[in-house]
Amino acid sequence: MAELAGNLLVAQSGGPTAVINASLAGVVQEAGRHECIEELYGGMNGILGILNEELIDFNEEKARTIDGLKCTPAAALGTCRYKIDFKKKPEQAAKDMDRLFEVFGAHNIRYFAYIGGNDSQDTSHKIHEEAVKRGYDLRVIGVPKTIDNDLPHTDNCPGYGSVIKYNATTVMEVGVDVGGMATSDGSCCIIEVMGRSAGWIAAGTVLAKRGNPANPPHIILLPELVFEQDKFLAKVKETVAAYKYCIVVVGEGIKDASGQEVGADKTRLDAFGHPVLAGAAEALKEIVEGRLNTKTRTVLLGYAQRAAAHCASLTDSSNALACGEAAVKAAVAGQSGFMVKIVRNAQPDGSVQWSTDLQPLADIANVEHFVPRDWIGDDGFLPNEKFVEYAKPLIEGEVKYPTEGGLPKYVTLEKVPVEKKLPPRS
Amino acid sequence: MAELAGNLLVAQSGGPTAVINASLAGVVQEAGRHECIEELYGGMNGILGILNEELIDFNEEKARTIDGLKCTPAAALGTCRYKIDFKKKPEQAAKDMDRLFEVFGAHNIRYFAYIGGNDSQDTSHKIHEEAVKRGYDLRVIGVPKTIDNDLPHTDNCPGYGSVIKYNATTVMEVGVDVGGMATSDGSCCIIEVMGRSAGWIAAGTVLAKRGNPANPPHIILLPELVFEQDKFLAKVKETVAAYKYCIVVVGEGIKDASGQEVGADKTRLDAFGHPVLAGAAEALKEIVEGRLNTKTRTVLLGYAQRAAAHCASLTDSSNALACGEAAVKAAVAGQSGFMVKIVRNAQPDGSVQWSTDLQPLADIANVEHFVPRDWIGDDGFLPNEKFVEYAKPLIEGEVKYPTEGGLPKYVTLEKVPVEKKLPPRS
Repeated sequence: MAELAGNLLVAQSGGPTAVINASLAGVVQEAGRHECIEELYGGMNGILGILNEELIDFNEEKARTIDGLKCTPAAALGTCRYKIDFKKKPEQAAKDMDRLFEVFGAHNIRYFAYIGGNDSQDTSHKIHEEAVKRGYDLRVIGVPKTIDNDLPHTDNCPGYGSVIKYNATTVMEVGVDVGGMATSDGSCCIIEVMGRSAGWIAAGTVLAKRGNPANPPHIILLPELVFEQDKFLAKVKETVAAYKYCIVVVGEGIKDASGQEVGADKTRLDAFGHPVLAGAAEALKEIVEGRLNTKTRTVLLGYAQRAAAHCASLTDSSNALACGEAAVKAAVAGQSGFMVKIVRNAQPDGSVQWSTDLQPLADIANVEHFVPRDWIGDDGFLPNEKFVEYAKPLIEGEVKYPTEGGLPKYVTLEKVPVEKKLPPRS
Repeated sequence: MAELAGNLLVAQSGGPTAVINASLAGVVQEAGRHECIEELYGGMNGILGILNEELIDFNEEKARTIDGLKCTPAAALGTCRYKIDFKKKPEQAAKDMDRLFEVFGAHNIRYFAYIGGNDSQDTSHKIHEEAVKRGYDLRVIGVPKTIDNDLPHTDNCPGYGSVIKYNATTVMEVGVDVGGMATSDGSCCIIEVMGRSAGWIAAGTVLAKRGNPANPPHIILLPELVFEQDKFLAKVKETVAAYKYCIVVVGEGIKDASGQEVGADKTRLDAFGHPVLAGAAEALKEIVEGRLNTKTRTVLLGYAQRAAAHCASLTDSSNALACGEAAVKAAVAGQSGFMVKIVRNAQPDGSVQWSTDLQPLADIANVEHFVPRDWIGDDGFLPNEKFVEYAKPLIEGEVKYPTEGGLPKYVTLEKVPVEKKLPPRS
């Protein structure tokens, strides 16, 4: 494949993670090592900013800032949830595609790296196909990112190891707190974590048990399984009887047999007439207090869990960086239409080493990967040894981050804009 | 004062903190340095366990475990919320006091260190007075502990520096996450923290601003000030207009002009007919979404904030340790009826050094210390420079903790019981 001279554009999309900027640093630093890549641009707020020709010039950023991205959470370039949707909005999608290639052409973009989850890989796939169709020489590589860990073909998704490291640490800490306060009256604490349809995040907190059944979490409710109230209450009761307290982790999206989200409160309507989403933890608290008369408190980690760079996994962060680098290497080598995937290489001594490979974007887009049923114990309340063996290596190592005045010192990009060459998007 | 030979008893009380075990380590390690202290006992679950003669022998614990307490969160001895209440339950209180001194006598307890907050200092005070009345030679020293930071006379309370370090870190991280996702539609995130009547914890998150008005948190609602809905909504609107997003921190106990907790939902009753405490953040979310139509998410840190030893302040942890040590030193020197307090010593170079001193327990018991009004800005939405100057030194430094498999390695006491010498408590 002949060397392709031109500019590189990188952007971030979807919900941020603690390590999505490590992938960005990987792209930017690797791009700097290849002479065929001339200018190095970032797209603001994903595809949406690119449509608006909002590009920034990475060569105006300090090397120190780029390095600092490796331990800075959230999306340094901003993200979006904008989708180029040929099915539901074919006219808008066609218009968007024309505009994207206008922007690419105007700025001689020949390399495009898009860091994101399911929807973003779909976008990358469409851009790749469109480039082929138009005969526009563009190398498109997707970089995986999602705390949900629901992308297929990759061993894990950058962001996942960090979210479960933080959540498992939190479960351990809340567990010793509640355990130390426990009396014969019994008490319960319900910790709600993210994961609307896939339960990877909730499942990951099983690592806090460290192999000891007495350790929390005692119950993990995954959205993959139907929530059965009586079975759940019996398990809480049994746990409180055994340990005086019970720590429950619940994935936000758990549903009952009718498919109704447990967190949706049908008795109350919001200003628009929709049921109030009080949250799964609050709903379970009312059930436990009402039915068992056991004092119950809740923790709702929300955005804190996906942004907790102060507790990021070094394994996860290193993989995120490697994915960014691999995307650029693949593109320079002439590849297009692939997502970088993480490959697990079990070592004879039981440790794990990681490498990257490529998977066609066509295999990724819009496929969701769930926790396998045989990785969950028979009663459905805890992931089993198969899951633990999978998840344990992902949280290993701590990311060192600089501090100032007792707080993490995260970096912010200067964001020097690239001069616009096109009329505003119509 | 003649040297008093006998045994020491230490116990923990009330809600745990990230550094309450550092105070315990201070007591135990300092006690080991004084020959007059013969046996070294721990009372399980505070006063309640002592009444039940549930004592453990610290000389059976490994030195490594005691050292590990310095970075282990929650109450290693267990705590209680039991109060010896002469006003409301005079008969039970008199009976409890008799029993306590039976236990003290049976085990030759001559030193009693009680680590706790407001109620616990009150208990220590009563025990001291009772010992004097009974002519029982006992040295009682209170060790301060509370994330609420509401004890008077001490510069700060061990546990407080760590909770605001963790909470401010979380606000920073949630802030970059939400800021990176923000579009012109605007968004809001409401983070609920502990503090039912004193707003020290909520106020401490102002440190996340690091002097920049654009940085989150943009609004802090303190329980000391009346919550005014319209003023609040106007401020959210103004903030979203300026920055596209707004981060609000709310102390759980905020009340409206009628004295009603904002988090109490009067439209719904629990199983006992009481209004459901849905929480302040959820209530504010409904207000913001309903009135401003701004997408709003919540974070409820709950117990996670007071147990977050993985993000503890070294300053706080060192002060907690020093308070434990100082309690034993004071008792050995013949003092009784005091609480150890932390003294701030401003240095010429602007740094702060810390020492300990003693304050009569009579001055502490049942006095609550609030955030001064002149430490809060005129509009009531943010603590001012006076507060920042006070709080900033408290979060400095990071506690190094050992890890295993990517998770903190916290210690657990062996808890070898001391042989009981009395009939069970009647």
